[in-house]
Amino acid sequence: MRPTEASTLLTDLYQLTMLQAYFDEEMNETAVFEFFVRKLPAGRNFFVAGGLEQALDFLSDLRFDPDELEWLSSCGRFKPEFVASLAGLRFTGAIDAMPEGTVFFPDEPILRVVAPMREAQLVETRMVNLLQYQTLVASKAARVRLAAPGKLLVDFGLRRTHGAEAGLLAARASYLAGLDGTSNVLAGMRWEVPLFGTMAHSYVQAHDRELVAFERFAYSHPRSTTLLIDTYDTEAAAQDLLPLARRLARAGIAIKAVRLDSGDLAAHAHQVRAILDAGGEFGIRIFASGNLDEYQLAGLVAGGAPIDGFGVGTRMSTSADHPYFDCAYKLQEYAGIARRKRSEGKATWPGRKQVFRRFDDAGQIAADTLTLASESPAGAPLLARVMDRGQRLAPSPPLVKVREYASQQLASLPPSLRSLDTAAPYRVEVAPALIELARQVDEREH
Amino acid sequence: MRPTEASTLLTDLYQLTMLQAYFDEEMNETAVFEFFVRKLPAGRNFFVAGGLEQALDFLSDLRFDPDELEWLSSCGRFKPEFVASLAGLRFTGAIDAMPEGTVFFPDEPILRVVAPMREAQLVETRMVNLLQYQTLVASKAARVRLAAPGKLLVDFGLRRTHGAEAGLLAARASYLAGLDGTSNVLAGMRWEVPLFGTMAHSYVQAHDRELVAFERFAYSHPRSTTLLIDTYDTEAAAQDLLPLARRLARAGIAIKAVRLDSGDLAAHAHQVRAILDAGGEFGIRIFASGNLDEYQLAGLVAGGAPIDGFGVGTRMSTSADHPYFDCAYKLQEYAGIARRKRSEGKATWPGRKQVFRRFDDAGQIAADTLTLASESPAGAPLLARVMDRGQRLAPSPPLVKVREYASQQLASLPPSLRSLDTAAPYRVEVAPALIELARQVDEREH
Repeated sequence: MRPTEASTLLTDLYQLTMLQAYFDEEMNETAVFEFFVRKLPAGRNFFVAGGLEQALDFLSDLRFDPDELEWLSSCGRFKPEFVASLAGLRFTGAIDAMPEGTVFFPDEPILRVVAPMREAQLVETRMVNLLQYQTLVASKAARVRLAAPGKLLVDFGLRRTHGAEAGLLAARASYLAGLDGTSNVLAGMRWEVPLFGTMAHSYVQAHDRELVAFERFAYSHPRSTTLLIDTYDTEAAAQDLLPLARRLARAGIAIKAVRLDSGDLAAHAHQVRAILDAGGEFGIRIFASGNLDEYQLAGLVAGGAPIDGFGVGTRMSTSADHPYFDCAYKLQEYAGIARRKRSEGKATWPGRKQVFRRFDDAGQIAADTLTLASESPAGAPLLARVMDRGQRLAPSPPLVKVREYASQQLASLPPSLRSLDTAAPYRVEVAPALIELARQVDEREH
Repeated sequence: MRPTEASTLLTDLYQLTMLQAYFDEEMNETAVFEFFVRKLPAGRNFFVAGGLEQALDFLSDLRFDPDELEWLSSCGRFKPEFVASLAGLRFTGAIDAMPEGTVFFPDEPILRVVAPMREAQLVETRMVNLLQYQTLVASKAARVRLAAPGKLLVDFGLRRTHGAEAGLLAARASYLAGLDGTSNVLAGMRWEVPLFGTMAHSYVQAHDRELVAFERFAYSHPRSTTLLIDTYDTEAAAQDLLPLARRLARAGIAIKAVRLDSGDLAAHAHQVRAILDAGGEFGIRIFASGNLDEYQLAGLVAGGAPIDGFGVGTRMSTSADHPYFDCAYKLQEYAGIARRKRSEGKATWPGRKQVFRRFDDAGQIAADTLTLASESPAGAPLLARVMDRGQRLAPSPPLVKVREYASQQLASLPPSLRSLDTAAPYRVEVAPALIELARQVDEREH
């Protein structure tokens, strides 16, 4: 059985029913679909593009395997000659996209598919699934990064993400957007995301004495000793570890940090810092975790809590305040003719589009223009061809390079957009040529 | 490369650092961990247990593969003799659990692991990841089911779920909790979840005339013709399809339903119903979708909107109002000694526990008692042994049987808990024996 993430049947049934209709109609002209987000939810001033890498992997590997074809044949919904036609199906189209890490805004396409209709339609469900989630997490993680400049920030979200792939991709997307690492071992193995983590409460509990747990752990991990000190009484544990720290120092082992995971983190951090400093342990850092998000981080930083780093988990990896974006993958052209839907509240801009971005003298972004790909207004175009005839045009950049680019993107935001507060919307102009095309499309009868 | 969902390295680094410490200490006595949810979020009156099936699969297949061991050896964090010890690691423990579909409440363990410490610790991250997500979706989907009795309800969430596994498991969990089917083809293939779905707006747009799209689709799918009628003008489309319906009828094809996907669904449904009825098409059903959740369903049902079925997607599959539960997998006993953490706001009940449920004369649930597994108060015990020495004790029930059981569970809820409004909390009593054990545990010095 194919793994879930690789199955071509991980799709909506209607993709296949439409494909059969197109097969019957012999319709397979070139289709143009674009992926975009319709609007910013409250508490987001921008989006950060993520997921392109996995989307390109998906397109490169697109095929039905024999088990899947057999199931399609036997399920009673599809004609044998249609199922047979799927055996040779591959993605042969072109992709234009914004690089991962690019800051973008509502209605701006971040990816365009230009391919024979059946291929372009079939991939819709998984393309949305892949592009939305990393964009969602990267957009949230960017806020976490902006809330705590200079602090060590680590993704701790895996256990409460929605399944295996979410856990893995949340580590990737949050690192891409500026976190310093993750607890997720597989993300370390796959993409060299720096790994962090030491002990759970269960480790302390399993030992009859907390101090014995601390000492044994230090000897087992002499170069990465972070001790979790809130299992029973945070301040008592901090006090008790002072003689241990001196004993370990004689053995050449330095306690790197203590971790707080419950209660009033600011209050505990102040008390623990005072205890450690009074004991001469100025070098032991304080790391905190527990239901954190960008707002709590900003509060702790603003209040001067002596915390050196944070583990940020569930609320970032599920984008808990807004766990989805109102995003879509829409047909904008078929057989050379621009198209759009006009459904109430869901009308789209027709045709192949490009986003041109202008910067001010300080290098900050000033305004975007959404227009036809064939136009050339002022500014730098954001979408570029990354795949042609089903082949990638260049190897994927290492994740650390994507992260550098995302960091530059965040630095190019004006302060109002970088703030956690909801800002006045960034200016995205719709060019006259695009408005005119929409008018022409709407004039056609259907 | 192993698929994400099967990788033993899809875990938190601290599981492995703790394992190395246990290896160094030669600590591997029997550990008892329990998984539970700490509290009900606003807008939830109960939980529905999900994910046991996948959790047991995970435990049955637990092993490190050669690539993973090689990476662990080379990453510079672990001792060779420790990594070598992982090669033979398998799950050899016992599992007690509530059946999937069981209704449960805060602090009640739904699953207990009894296993050598290293195995029981290693599996924490993925066990939480698997148990939380399906429980989250099943608990939300149960509310969706209760909000619209008798209506056809279909999961449409795949594209905006968080990755591949979430998409697949959301289809499973929502069907388990009472939905009638899904658009997710892979869920149909894997578990025979009934499949639904016909056409997208793109299909209508790709044809120059909407009616041509409708007619061609009907001929391609004569037994499952549902037409999406909101691409341009909903009521105009309903009017236009009347002559088409008569033409198709002469060819032996019945239009089963029309789908509305935008605007004021109740208003459109009333108008479309009137148009269809005036045209004598009483048999064509109305199906609606678009950003629905249990509250909107309840409103549409209460308002008497003539809608026969609903596609419910993003908000259900991401559990959008509460996209995570405050759940935990905690050590409650090690080497025969009951234990608990006392961290502020996060203290747990120690020892191996059982939940006993009492029913009233009408067969509705009346109260639960949380107590030690060794006690026998009034009521029926909810956890039962499902795995021993790493082997399942029985084959898994077919999903349709789990769904029947969940339906009975929902029927056993008193009306206040079945309501969408937040109810007075269900009574979960903590037995004196458990309170006494906690007192004794707290008296020990650490």
